[in-house]
Amino acid sequence: MEDRFEKGMSVLKITNKDNINDIFKIFEDIAPDLGRFIVEFPYSEIYTREAVDLKTRELCTIASLTTLGAIPELKSHIEGALNVDCTPTEIVEIIMQMSAYIGFPRTIEAMIAAKEIFEEKDLLPLTE
Amino acid sequence: MEDRFEKGMSVLKITNKDNINDIFKIFEDIAPDLGRFIVEFPYSEIYTREAVDLKTRELCTIASLTTLGAIPELKSHIEGALNVDCTPTEIVEIIMQMSAYIGFPRTIEAMIAAKEIFEEKDLLPLTE
Amino acid sequence: MEDRFEKGMSVLKITNKDNINDIFKIFEDIAPDLGRFIVEFPYSEIYTREAVDLKTRELCTIASLTTLGAIPELKSHIEGALNVDCTPTEIVEIIMQMSAYIGFPRTIEAMIAAKEIFEEKDLLPLTE
Amino acid sequence: MEDRFEKGMSVLKITNKDNINDIFKIFEDIAPDLGRFIVEFPYSEIYTREAVDLKTRELCTIASLTTLGAIPELKSHIEGALNVDCTPTEIVEIIMQMSAYIGFPRTIEAMIAAKEIFEEKDLLPLTE
Amino acid sequence: MEDRFEKGMSVLKITNKDNINDIFKIFEDIAPDLGRFIVEFPYSEIYTREAVDLKTRELCTIASLTTLGAIPELKSHIEGALNVDCTPTEIVEIIMQMSAYIGFPRTIEAMIAAKEIFEEKDLLPLTE
Amino acid sequence: MEDRFEKGMSVLKITNKDNINDIFKIFEDIAPDLGRFIVEFPYSEIYTREAVDLKTRELCTIASLTTLGAIPELKSHIEGALNVDCTPTEIVEIIMQMSAYIGFPRTIEAMIAAKEIFEEKDLLPLTE
Repeated sequence: MEDRFEKGMSVLKITNKDNINDIFKIFEDIAPDLGRFIVEFPYSEIYTREAVDLKTRELCTIASLTTLGAIPELKSHIEGALNVDCTPTEIVEIIMQMSAYIGFPRTIEAMIAAKEIFEEKDLLPLTE
Repeated sequence: MEDRFEKGMSVLKITNKDNINDIFKIFEDIAPDLGRFIVEFPYSEIYTREAVDLKTRELCTIASLTTLGAIPELKSHIEGALNVDCTPTEIVEIIMQMSAYIGFPRTIEAMIAAKEIFEEKDLLPLTE
Repeated sequence: MEDRFEKGMSVLKITNKDNINDIFKIFEDIAPDLGRFIVEFPYSEIYTREAVDLKTRELCTIASLTTLGAIPELKSHIEGALNVDCTPTEIVEIIMQMSAYIGFPRTIEAMIAAKEIFEEKDLLPLTE
Repeated sequence: MEDRFEKGMSVLKITNKDNINDIFKIFEDIAPDLGRFIVEFPYSEIYTREAVDLKTRELCTIASLTTLGAIPELKSHIEGALNVDCTPTEIVEIIMQMSAYIGFPRTIEAMIAAKEIFEEKDLLPLTE
Repeated sequence: MEDRFEKGMSVLKITNKDNINDIFKIFEDIAPDLGRFIVEFPYSEIYTREAVDLKTRELCTIASLTTLGAIPELKSHIEGALNVDCTPTEIVEIIMQMSAYIGFPRTIEAMIAAKEIFEEKDLLPLTE
Repeated sequence: MEDRFEKGMSVLKITNKDNINDIFKIFEDIAPDLGRFIVEFPYSEIYTREAVDLKTRELCTIASLTTLGAIPELKSHIEGALNVDCTPTEIVEIIMQMSAYIGFPRTIEAMIAAKEIFEEKDLLPLTE
C-alpha cells in the first residue's frame, strides 16, 4: 500500500512541486482519504504509465478540464503542465482548440484562468 | 473565402481521408453551411496552427470528446488520430486517463467506442 | 387540481397533437405521476404564461435540448415547434447557432435529429 | 392551490428551517413565481411521498448536486441533510463516493463546499 | 478576411454596444485570435443570417447559456438581449422556462445573474 | 495488491452477482487495467466503507447516473440496487426526485431505462 502511495507521490513531486501538501491539508479534518485516493489512483496508476509522456498527459488533462468547466483544477493542471515543460503557447493552443468541441463560453472561462496563472508567473505577453 | 475553405480541406484530407465527403453529404439538404463552418473554423483556423502538432491535437480532442460523452464524434476522431500516427495504445491511455477527471461511466462508454473502431480495423488485441 | 391538469393539457393538445397520450402510456405501469408532473408543471404553469408566445418558447426549448444533448426530447420538441408554426428553416437556424455556445459535436447530433424528423415529414430539402 | 403550497412548506419548515424565507425574498422583485414553483413542485409533490424518507432523499440530492457541480444549491442541501439527521460523515461519504462516477474535480469542489458548511457549524474535525 | 471581421463587428456594435472592446482587450496579450474567432464565426456567420431575427437569437442564446451554466457569458447576453429590444420580462420568462429542462439549481443561478444585471440597470421591480 | 482486488470483488459478488465477469471480458483485449481500476478503486476503497450501507450507496449512485445521463451504467446500477434490497418503488422515487434537479428530459430517459430493467425481471406493474 505504501508503495502505491510513494509511486504516486513521485509524479506529484514533479507536477505539483510547489503545492504538493495542499491536497492533503485541505481535506485532513474532513476527508483525509480523498487526498490519498488522488495520489494512489490517478497519479500512481495512470500518470506513471510509460506509453504516454507527462507533457502529453497534462495537455490532455487541460483539454478535459476545459471541457468540464472545472476552473480550480484547470489552474492547478496549467501549473502542472508548465512544470513538465509545456510552453504557455501550447497550453493556449489547446484551450483555443476546445472552442470547436465545447463552444466559446467555456473556452473563454478557461482562457481567463490561463491568463491568471501566466500573469502570476510573469509569462505575458506571449510572443509567438 | 475559398482560400479558408481550401486551407481547412488540406487538414481534413489527412485526418478524415476515408470519409471526407460525409460531413457535406449528411447536411447538404438541411444545413449545407454547417459543413462549411466545420471546414473553415476548426480545421482551417485551428488545426493548421503550427504551435502544436496534429498528433497532440487529436489526442486532446479525444480527451475532450470523452469528457463530453460525444460518442459519434469521438469515433470519428479516433480514426483521425490513427491517421496522424497516434498508436492505438496512446489512444487507450488517454481515454483511461480521463477516468480521473470524469469518472468511470463516460470512460467506459469511450473505451467501448475505441474498441469498436479498433475491431473494425483489426487492431486488437493490443499487445503492449 | 383537475384545473391545473386541464390547463396543461390545453397546451399539449396543440404542441403534441399527434402523440399526446404517449407521455402517459409510457410510464403508466411504473411512474404514472411523472406524466402528470409534466402536464401540471411545465405545460400548465409555464407554457400558458402570456409574456412569451408558444413559437418563441419552442425555439428556446430546442436551444436548451440541443445544449443538453437530450435527443429524444429534442425530436419531440422539433415536432412541437412545427405544430406552433415554426418553419423548418427557423429550427435549423437555432440549432446551427448553438455551435457557438456548445461546439460542433452536440450541434451535429441535434442537426441529425432534425433531419430525421424533417425526412419523416417529407420537408426536405429546405429551399431557403 | 393553497393546499399544495402549504404541503410543500411543511417539508421546507424541516429541511430549510433557518432560511425558509430566502427562497421567496431573493426573487420577489424579479420572478416571484419561481419560488412558488419550488415549493409546489419538488417539495409538495416529491419530498412528501412516503416511499423514501427525507434522509435518503437529501443524500440522493447531494449526490445529484455534486454530479451537477451546482455548489450554492449543494450547500443549501447539505444544511437540509443535517436538518433531517444525516451525519456529517454520511454526507462526506456520499460526496467521496461520487469520485467514481464524476471524477475528482467536481468531487473536490463539493467537498470544499461541505467543509465550508461544517466549519460554519463547528462540526470539524470529523472523528469517525 | 477583413470583410468577415467587419460583418461580425456590425452585429456586435448593436448587441454589445457598451463593451465591444472588452472581448479583444481581455485576450490581447495571451490569445488575440480568440477574440477574432468570436467576431468572425458566430457574429459574422450566424447572427447575420436573416432567417431568424436578433431578438429571437438572443433569447435562444439565453436558453442555451442557462442550460450550460455559463454565468459570465449569460450576463453578457442578457445585456445583448436588452440591446435588441427583448424586455426584462421576456428574459425572465425564458430563464424560468428552463426549469423544466434543466431543473431548479441552474435556473436559480441564471435568475440571480439576471437580477444582478437588472439591478445595475435599475430595471427592478418588474411589474408585469 | 491482491488484497485490494479481493476486497473489491467481495462487494461486486453482491451487487453484480449475475454479470461480474463482463467488466473484465469487455476490456480484456484493449484495456485490461480499466476493469482492475474499477474493482480496486470504487468497489474496494469506497463501497466497503461502513459509514453508509450498500443500499443507500446504490440509491445515491442511481441519483448521480441519472443526473449524468449515463444510461448503460445506470441500468447496471439499477440491477445492483435490486441486488442489495432496494425496492423497485424506491428506485423509481429517486429517479422521479431528480426531475427537480436536472429537469424532465434526463429524468424521462432514466425512467425508461428503469422500465426496461423492471420489464426484463417481470417486476411491472408497480403496485404501490
